Amino acid sequence: MPKVTPEHLEARRAQILEGARRAFADHGYEGATVAKLEEATGLSRGAIFHYFENKNDLFVELAMEMNTRFGDILFENGLEDALRAIASENPEWLAVLIETESRMRHDEDFLTRFEARAAAVGPRIRNWFEERQADGMLRDDVSSVEIGRFASSVINGLALRVASGDPFDVEVMIRLLNDAVAPRP
Amino acid sequence: MPKVTPEHLEARRAQILEGARRAFADHGYEGATVAKLEEATGLSRGAIFHYFENKNDLFVELAMEMNTRFGDILFENGLEDALRAIASENPEWLAVLIETESRMRHDEDFLTRFEARAAAVGPRIRNWFEERQADGMLRDDVSSVEIGRFASSVINGLALRVASGDPFDVEVMIRLLNDAVAPRP
Repeated sequence: MPKVTPEHLEARRAQILEGARRAFADHGYEGATVAKLEEATGLSRGAIFHYFENKNDLFVELAMEMNTRFGDILFENGLEDALRAIASENPEWLAVLIETESRMRHDEDFLTRFEARAAAVGPRIRNWFEERQADGMLRDDVSSVEIGRFASSVINGLALRVASGDPFDVEVMIRLLNDAVAPRP
Repeated sequence: MPKVTPEHLEARRAQILEGARRAFADHGYEGATVAKLEEATGLSRGAIFHYFENKNDLFVELAMEMNTRFGDILFENGLEDALRAIASENPEWLAVLIETESRMRHDEDFLTRFEARAAAVGPRIRNWFEERQADGMLRDDVSSVEIGRFASSVINGLALRVASGDPFDVEVMIRLLNDAVAPRP
């Protein structure tokens, strides 16, 4: 029997998430049946549900991974690269993400899992805006919380455009967002 | 037999749309069964589907009515009031709207109906931004098309916030959007 290392477990987990994201993108949340998840991950249902409790759990993981990834881009490369990342995101996956998050707003189980995971990213993002404002890199005539809300609305609005296949020039969007949040002359 | 006037037909149509919007907001698109639609409109399925082909048709009408209403607010009162209108929109209805539009992007029937109706509003909105730019009320160092795309992304991103119950100060959002699109000093 092969020895199961932590690296092996992590790689298997990543393989499942990657396949599941593809299955959700291709078939939608409801359409991604267990059979489709098996096909996309190349693993049996037994293996998949050894790592994740259920489909809901898999979806929450993917949504949170996305949040975390965007947080990391923001912290390491700033708002401009966060907009570029959204512009080059897979439209099908974004559409499923938006649709499912929207539909699950009344699902207690989803909300509990999601909020537990989101709790780690939200304060870091608020912090990031607060620090940039304190450093004089953001306008200081409105609260940094509202600046963050505006920036995240732009990102989410662009995500909706990407999901719908509606075009835009991301460099122009960056310029307009920068001018909205930059220190006033 | 009472005479059926055009006013009567129009009032009946409005009654159905109003009830259907409530049913969609309360139960979601899938959850708004024909029985729930009858209950919410106070009319029989026979009456409802005399005015609208099917549930899909009803939903497209409501989505388009919303587009038209927002277009009218924009044309008559400008961007600021369009943001205020989104901020005071019913969160449940917005959530269903976003989720269903997102899910139906592959539904040929929906797309055909939707695009036929949207064809009337899109060019008027593009025109509005073009004229404002020509009048010197918008910055002219980027195209009016991209300004329109940015503004609509802000509106849609705020709609997502409203749908999720996430707060924001709409007057601050207006100020930031105005500073993004105003003529450069």
